[in-house]
Amino acid sequence: MKLTILGCHSATPRIDANPTSQVLDIANHIFLIDCAEGTQIQLRKNKVKFSRIKHIFISHLHGDHFFGLVGLISTFRLLTREADLHIYAPKGLKEVITLQMKLAKSWTNYNVIFHELTSDKSKLIFEDDKVEVHTIPLNHRVYTNGFLFKEKEKERKLDVNKAISLNIDKAYFRKLKQGFDVTNEEGVLIKNIDVTKPGPKPKSFAFCSDTVYCELIIPIIKDVDILYHESTFLESHKHLAETTKHSTAKQAATIAKKANIGTLILGHYSTRYDDYELFIKEAKTVFDKVELAKDGKVFQF
Amino acid sequence: MKLTILGCHSATPRIDANPTSQVLDIANHIFLIDCAEGTQIQLRKNKVKFSRIKHIFISHLHGDHFFGLVGLISTFRLLTREADLHIYAPKGLKEVITLQMKLAKSWTNYNVIFHELTSDKSKLIFEDDKVEVHTIPLNHRVYTNGFLFKEKEKERKLDVNKAISLNIDKAYFRKLKQGFDVTNEEGVLIKNIDVTKPGPKPKSFAFCSDTVYCELIIPIIKDVDILYHESTFLESHKHLAETTKHSTAKQAATIAKKANIGTLILGHYSTRYDDYELFIKEAKTVFDKVELAKDGKVFQF
Repeated sequence: MKLTILGCHSATPRIDANPTSQVLDIANHIFLIDCAEGTQIQLRKNKVKFSRIKHIFISHLHGDHFFGLVGLISTFRLLTREADLHIYAPKGLKEVITLQMKLAKSWTNYNVIFHELTSDKSKLIFEDDKVEVHTIPLNHRVYTNGFLFKEKEKERKLDVNKAISLNIDKAYFRKLKQGFDVTNEEGVLIKNIDVTKPGPKPKSFAFCSDTVYCELIIPIIKDVDILYHESTFLESHKHLAETTKHSTAKQAATIAKKANIGTLILGHYSTRYDDYELFIKEAKTVFDKVELAKDGKVFQF
Repeated sequence: MKLTILGCHSATPRIDANPTSQVLDIANHIFLIDCAEGTQIQLRKNKVKFSRIKHIFISHLHGDHFFGLVGLISTFRLLTREADLHIYAPKGLKEVITLQMKLAKSWTNYNVIFHELTSDKSKLIFEDDKVEVHTIPLNHRVYTNGFLFKEKEKERKLDVNKAISLNIDKAYFRKLKQGFDVTNEEGVLIKNIDVTKPGPKPKSFAFCSDTVYCELIIPIIKDVDILYHESTFLESHKHLAETTKHSTAKQAATIAKKANIGTLILGHYSTRYDDYELFIKEAKTVFDKVELAKDGKVFQF
């Protein structure tokens, strides 16, 4: 699992500060999460192959999270993309995109499939044999979701030599990897646990931005390996966090602690701060495993 | 008059190639012409003061000419702008912008005044005591206008010493600068031409992008000092210019020659070319005073 931060700042694009966008490389997928203005350039700078992006998740319809999407869709068209593109976003985005395509008389030559999110409950929105994606309802000034990406349970590791020595037919190896007991050539039942070990632990990532401090998300993100949680402010501006429905670094850390997550990544910093070390310092008073997001930074797990 | 090229490439934003946007500094105005994705960053890089932009001209509704506008409008809001913003653009843009503002629940705290362009004739769309702006109807795949910026006739230069020696009351100096004859203290008529010289020549700039070769624009842009004319292609791809309704470098030069303009600036290069010197070479076979646009390049006239 690899997470690339394309942009982690709030508000407006600046020369060295891009608004929100991330790429999650998980279970053979390249998931794009949010798509602020300039995301195309950031994708190029970080050498992400455009053709590998098939699913885009948009948290909410504030410009610093989606103004780059219409341009990316247009670029896909110019690159003569053919593969379907799935967009998971609040209701309204489809209208924004199609209106602009219509005015430009430039319909895409590939399918854009909008999955409109409207529920205030956590929903399974994507699933294949390796991974699931669920929404995480957040509490912000407009309808907002975070996203939980979870690898599915992986196949068990088979001790092939032992299986052969126990006279198990090769045809049953798959069943063993899937966790079933099998019968060998002599008709003896072989317990799965005697010939397999657990597979690698499935990994999980939760993206939570933008949101006010919200304990309702804790059961949804419980025990995730990595949590990206916005921390627009420090505690010294807690009153602003409340009125603008954002979080402080300490609040993000409190969520991380209560949800028993592995590593917390902070981001979505307000433009008022120059020294981001203050965010990590504040968060560490509550939760120890904290990292700072930075444009272009890659987290490998 | 100063022209700053923020972006001069066609199609998509790339790491070192920005789509169309220009800033024209004329008669105390900072006019923004087109506003592709990334224009905000380019404005910052080129140290253009956001607060000085009061008029934005959008040629047409292809993404590489306006996808940066909604973000710029949002940034103005975050910067707590109060001054009115005038946008001159084809019908439809207002709907695009207001829909996104509505979804984000973020109305601007300043007035955005949309001047919807719908005519296929050249129209005067802005005027004050120093400058006029006219549309230049172009021929592209969607409704498109170029823009002609013309300084008004400037005041004549008064020879103050001569005026005093001729016993003209100071109260008449203004009239003299405006070109009138006046009567001196002795009641003698003084011819304007005897005490003034012509003021500096008014300057003019025409922006023509995107368009197929179109001689109908010649009478409108006749004798302008500077013409920016798109040259997406070279003659070797003339067939593509025709089908996509763009121009070649030679065609741009032909327009420049027939309209008797001062200097031609080429731009809007297709991504297929690496060597832009080929554009200048081709244009020079027809018209000698040719320059190449380049992102960040400043033309001072």
